[in-house]
Amino acid sequence: METNAIPAVDAILSDYTRGRTIDRLQMPHRPDKECVYALLDQLFSVLYFGCYPAPARLADDPAEALRMTVEDAMVRMRHLVISALPGDARYASWSMAELSEEAQEITEAFFQSVPGMRALLETDLQAIYDGDPAAENLEEIILAYPGFYAITIYRIAHELYRLGVPMLPRIMSERAHSRTGIDIHPGAQIGASFFIDHGTGIVVGETTVIGEHVKLYQGVTLGAVSTRAGQGLRGKKRHPTIGNKVTLYACASVLGDTQIGDGCTIGSNVFITKDVPANTTVSLEEQELNFHSRS
Amino acid sequence: METNAIPAVDAILSDYTRGRTIDRLQMPHRPDKECVYALLDQLFSVLYFGCYPAPARLADDPAEALRMTVEDAMVRMRHLVISALPGDARYASWSMAELSEEAQEITEAFFQSVPGMRALLETDLQAIYDGDPAAENLEEIILAYPGFYAITIYRIAHELYRLGVPMLPRIMSERAHSRTGIDIHPGAQIGASFFIDHGTGIVVGETTVIGEHVKLYQGVTLGAVSTRAGQGLRGKKRHPTIGNKVTLYACASVLGDTQIGDGCTIGSNVFITKDVPANTTVSLEEQELNFHSRS
Amino acid sequence: METNAIPAVDAILSDYTRGRTIDRLQMPHRPDKECVYALLDQLFSVLYFGCYPAPARLADDPAEALRMTVEDAMVRMRHLVISALPGDARYASWSMAELSEEAQEITEAFFQSVPGMRALLETDLQAIYDGDPAAENLEEIILAYPGFYAITIYRIAHELYRLGVPMLPRIMSERAHSRTGIDIHPGAQIGASFFIDHGTGIVVGETTVIGEHVKLYQGVTLGAVSTRAGQGLRGKKRHPTIGNKVTLYACASVLGDTQIGDGCTIGSNVFITKDVPANTTVSLEEQELNFHSRS
Repeated sequence: METNAIPAVDAILSDYTRGRTIDRLQMPHRPDKECVYALLDQLFSVLYFGCYPAPARLADDPAEALRMTVEDAMVRMRHLVISALPGDARYASWSMAELSEEAQEITEAFFQSVPGMRALLETDLQAIYDGDPAAENLEEIILAYPGFYAITIYRIAHELYRLGVPMLPRIMSERAHSRTGIDIHPGAQIGASFFIDHGTGIVVGETTVIGEHVKLYQGVTLGAVSTRAGQGLRGKKRHPTIGNKVTLYACASVLGDTQIGDGCTIGSNVFITKDVPANTTVSLEEQELNFHSRS
Repeated sequence: METNAIPAVDAILSDYTRGRTIDRLQMPHRPDKECVYALLDQLFSVLYFGCYPAPARLADDPAEALRMTVEDAMVRMRHLVISALPGDARYASWSMAELSEEAQEITEAFFQSVPGMRALLETDLQAIYDGDPAAENLEEIILAYPGFYAITIYRIAHELYRLGVPMLPRIMSERAHSRTGIDIHPGAQIGASFFIDHGTGIVVGETTVIGEHVKLYQGVTLGAVSTRAGQGLRGKKRHPTIGNKVTLYACASVLGDTQIGDGCTIGSNVFITKDVPANTTVSLEEQELNFHSRS
Repeated sequence: METNAIPAVDAILSDYTRGRTIDRLQMPHRPDKECVYALLDQLFSVLYFGCYPAPARLADDPAEALRMTVEDAMVRMRHLVISALPGDARYASWSMAELSEEAQEITEAFFQSVPGMRALLETDLQAIYDGDPAAENLEEIILAYPGFYAITIYRIAHELYRLGVPMLPRIMSERAHSRTGIDIHPGAQIGASFFIDHGTGIVVGETTVIGEHVKLYQGVTLGAVSTRAGQGLRGKKRHPTIGNKVTLYACASVLGDTQIGDGCTIGSNVFITKDVPANTTVSLEEQELNFHSRS
């Protein structure tokens, strides 16, 4: 670089002395995003080893390769949890030894939940296969379906959210959002046999509760009515509760702390802010359309 | 890992003995996703060599570099087709030699289709340039436009779908969906001069048929009416047929085996489940809006 | 590859002799996309060094590491600008020395704008935190929020667009579009304290002007009425002007060169093509819904 470039460099360096969050030069406890993505890849191996196998050098004995993958993922998760915990004020003054022990306990709790998580994901997998005539077989869904990818990451991130880990769940859910257009907050509670098709544009907010056998199509929003109060709404139930066996067709919106009863069907583009009793089909009145012929 | 972590590991290992699809430790014929993505990258070089050149070490003689790229892509595709074919019940009992010969024939058929595919893609490229006043030049569209990226992958994946290859077409189309928000099933049939702008949220279902000079804007759905029958609908025509010179503006939906005649224009947010005759403009009645002034 | 594959290869090679843009074997001035992405990664380090630190080998002295990162990013940007400039007819006949000098001046101008850009981005960061009750802290927004990622890339790309650099701004904005579903043209003009939540499906067209303290939710379109005239509309103001303190809820659309006055709130799914005076709340008449009970 020619020396006449230095004024710009110096101006940037001195701009870092203003004391804003964006001016911090070091954040020792910031979890490394790429490392979180690598952990997610490993967790896909832990959950679906046949479809996401370990590196070839381990392939002679697949059961042993699975064991090594699980152990490796536990080490990686523990390190990431250690780096993430101080982001929560509760942990700010903990010693490294205390953080390390807490991270070990959280990591073990997470991995103890894996068999239950796999049982749930098996119900999701079956629901997607049953509901989509374009699905050839289960392997195709595990390997290629964005809905199943997003549900898997949601179930991982939700467990870490439930265990009180800061930062990591949101980084994970935004990985899924980025890759699929499906934005499920890790705090949402979602029952078994969850079905998503296409998925682009789906939003499921933090305090949403969803029952079993629920189907969401692309563009469905389960959101808040207004967030004008901003941080004042922190932690309040501000998103819908959806019963069992509910289907929400493309671009339906349910906003606010609204109850949709069991067995409801909500049609495309329907916009709901009030409770709907069980077993109700809600659809738009037919649109008034103009037909203008040029022939 | 401390030894007290082992209970979680053992529980996961024993969870893999339940006999579900997700419990298979090996799927020798599963195509490797990363390898499919690498093939796609090579195919972009095969199709648009100037914009997606081969590695620099080959750059002395570009025609020779193109030849090597094509040959390399053929080898890679043949291997991937071999790994994918046993996913179809037809091929389950074939010997490796038979699979290899079949894969060779499919690969050659695919590459023989490339000049025709490039001629089609040239019409798509021109349609995007002609239709978008923000487009600076053709190179920008080839390099950066998500619509053209998704159309290119669709035309590749559709050819493999037509040749009866399982798994690979869907992995490819989901690559495009992930990167662009445009979800075109490889089974759809789409004519020349296909135009997509913005594209996020577009869904084009498996049995859709689209004519020439058709334009789709963001959020357009060409979908099924209801998939309640699930796998019972497998292979049935359940998506629209769109004529020539039809424009569908943002978030228009056409559902079911519905015919939209040549020369139609379907306005933003219009929702159609019945046939529309040729040369018809369909628009929403103006929305009834509330205007409330606070001043 | 067996020799019987050669006919397909030869057919492809001879297909490259037709003289179309897609037949060019070399585009020496084409900017390398991967290199643009690497520059974006470096610019995130330049802007938010604590959250996107330089490689570990540099970490002993973070201020020195920041300086090296800025200098390195300047070198990379200058090379990319040199490769991009000849894409504009103005520069077609310039010598390499002239291009290099011009690129140096553009690069310095860009980096001199960084402190101002960081001041703007600090207002955006604060607006996102204030407006989203699910946001834990500022670091989480910098690391994981797609809205903030897209706004950052927009402010970078807009500066390069303003400096007249071809190709690079659009490649950058499409990087953000691909990762977030948020499609902001680099030519748009956007004021301070810009807020985006969820974001998937947002479209902001080239000639849009947006004031300060504006909030956009997922699916909002600020677009053109019709682009039937295609390239004939090049450079014309064809997108909306949005005042200060305007909120646009999910899937609202404002089309054409339409003015939305200060302090307006535009409700979900509202579709606007005419001016709206200041301090007006526009909402849909309540939808006429059919409720059909099956119980």
